[in-house]
Amino acid sequence: MLPLQILLSLPAWIGEVADVGRRYRSDEDRVGLAIELSRRNVACGDGGPFGAAVFDAADGRLIAAGVNRVIPQSCSVAHAEMMATMIAQQRLRRHRLNDDGGRYVLASSAQPCCQCYGGTVWSGIDELLIGARSEDVEELTEFDEGPLPADWIGELERRGIVVRRDILRDRARGVLAVYGASGMPY
Amino acid sequence: MLPLQILLSLPAWIGEVADVGRRYRSDEDRVGLAIELSRRNVACGDGGPFGAAVFDAADGRLIAAGVNRVIPQSCSVAHAEMMATMIAQQRLRRHRLNDDGGRYVLASSAQPCCQCYGGTVWSGIDELLIGARSEDVEELTEFDEGPLPADWIGELERRGIVVRRDILRDRARGVLAVYGASGMPY
Repeated sequence: MLPLQILLSLPAWIGEVADVGRRYRSDEDRVGLAIELSRRNVACGDGGPFGAAVFDAADGRLIAAGVNRVIPQSCSVAHAEMMATMIAQQRLRRHRLNDDGGRYVLASSAQPCCQCYGGTVWSGIDELLIGARSEDVEELTEFDEGPLPADWIGELERRGIVVRRDILRDRARGVLAVYGASGMPY
Repeated sequence: MLPLQILLSLPAWIGEVADVGRRYRSDEDRVGLAIELSRRNVACGDGGPFGAAVFDAADGRLIAAGVNRVIPQSCSVAHAEMMATMIAQQRLRRHRLNDDGGRYVLASSAQPCCQCYGGTVWSGIDELLIGARSEDVEELTEFDEGPLPADWIGELERRGIVVRRDILRDRARGVLAVYGASGMPY
């Protein structure tokens, strides 16, 4: 008999880091949370050095958080951005977040890889905020970002998704450096 | 309190279509199953017109099946290829399928979109088998395949993933045409 279900989960400490009562209003507030999630994920040994979060762009309300869970959950899809996006969509009960006419933001501690890049196209986000660049990830860790379209930012912007990067880049690089120096398996 | 879990599921009829006792030995056997999954998914109204399956390349054993579940599960990640890949990985308890030294095949009723394309890079598959082309999907349905690298096949092949396409292409186009003519929401 084939399995018919997939269950993915986040660590319980997410609730200590991500504050549902707070309003995350600036790009730095939003990427700052993503970076803190990445830092804590490494410190707790719960997955790779990546964090992400989805916000309501208008009021800064936190909709969902995510961290990399690839190795603990045996799932190559379980990157931080995908976890945050899937949880946000299931929470709001729609597969395209902005189908309600609102605007939604995905903040990531690092530039999305080829899989998460493609995923943003279908997710219904309006803004993608990025901490570390792809070259930071490849310099400081063993991770590969994979093949992207040559004009990856332009492709998103033509589909209505604004991209802003280098937000708290040094802080994001700091987590990647700690991870890279640790020799951790993920 | 933020949700910390994602649950995705496939329809119960998958077990009637996908035969764990059979050995799917040829490319046509493998893509044929993916197309039959897509056909049944449309007929049952359980998601978009896409099916996929993961096989052990050596003996043709079926590891996992998947169909598009985007709208029913409120999840833009729940494309057929991602569902099949995630179930295969959780079943085999490793995030990279071929880490055991085996060879694995992902067969899809249609060319993977930008998200599933990126996902294949990390999944540990060795062969990607495709029925309908991207232009078939865009001709016969309202779906967009999204931005891909210019040389998307070459990028996979440089990473050790062989791509073969146009396998039972007319049969795959037939399902897309039925779906496209039906005016179904997904």
